[in-house]
Amino acid sequence: MPAEEMMLEEVERFLTCARVGRLGMYIGNQVHIYPVGYVYSDGKIFFHTCKKGLKMTGIQNNNNVCFEVDECTSDVSMYSSVIVFGTVNIVDDKVKMVSYMQALINKYRVPEPFDLYMKKRGRSINKELQASCIWLITPKKITGRRYVKDKIEI
Amino acid sequence: MPAEEMMLEEVERFLTCARVGRLGMYIGNQVHIYPVGYVYSDGKIFFHTCKKGLKMTGIQNNNNVCFEVDECTSDVSMYSSVIVFGTVNIVDDKVKMVSYMQALINKYRVPEPFDLYMKKRGRSINKELQASCIWLITPKKITGRRYVKDKIEI
Repeated sequence: MPAEEMMLEEVERFLTCARVGRLGMYIGNQVHIYPVGYVYSDGKIFFHTCKKGLKMTGIQNNNNVCFEVDECTSDVSMYSSVIVFGTVNIVDDKVKMVSYMQALINKYRVPEPFDLYMKKRGRSINKELQASCIWLITPKKITGRRYVKDKIEI
Repeated sequence: MPAEEMMLEEVERFLTCARVGRLGMYIGNQVHIYPVGYVYSDGKIFFHTCKKGLKMTGIQNNNNVCFEVDECTSDVSMYSSVIVFGTVNIVDDKVKMVSYMQALINKYRVPEPFDLYMKKRGRSINKELQASCIWLITPKKITGRRYVKDKIEI
């Protein structure tokens, strides 16, 4: 197999730039995979989610997760993927949440201060912060692989 | 949340056309996610993999998996995803494997008969069929969601 391990710098660049990550959790004897928009910063991964639902119940029982990002050509002859094993902490302190929300806005929206962004859309900041929370993944192990198929391979 | 459930026809179209799926497995008290090139056909999902490795050991202990495909815009304001819960059977009978390999070639290569494809690359068909196997996922539950963000949402 011509797969190569990525250096940490490449892994971090890949995690910073990828648009969607997949969160793998074990809930009720079943693996679940959720696609999420996320930010990688200072060695941690975080995303914003609703406080309710199966995912939320699941994380309270088992906060060990797998997080995956990948990118490949349409014929899957070249791909890169990063796999993270880590644990999740829930951040629901409203003051702390704002800086995470700001980072998410900076990645997925035209950057502007969180409070202005929320005002513009006629939303209640308090309501938003009340209904949602931040999932913060602290990695225990991160691996990245880059793969280019040999000419003779399928 | 403005997420909509997909109809079965849309789910099947999405599974047929997506280029990469993510396989979620539970191995040694840890969720693992593997990106794979696959085919969806006749209600089943299959892909080709090496007979050795952690994934192979894992599936012998627990063949319940989650399989995910998604597609989204770069700002994650629109996305579609399909989640499959199912069980894996390993196909390593060489005769049976050929038709699955053919379907994979037809999706990921310029279609041509498997034996010709293998000859061209100077490979041994027997060696290839000996070293690899097909993972066949029989879905127990499939759900698809399509999501378009409201104007006021983050």
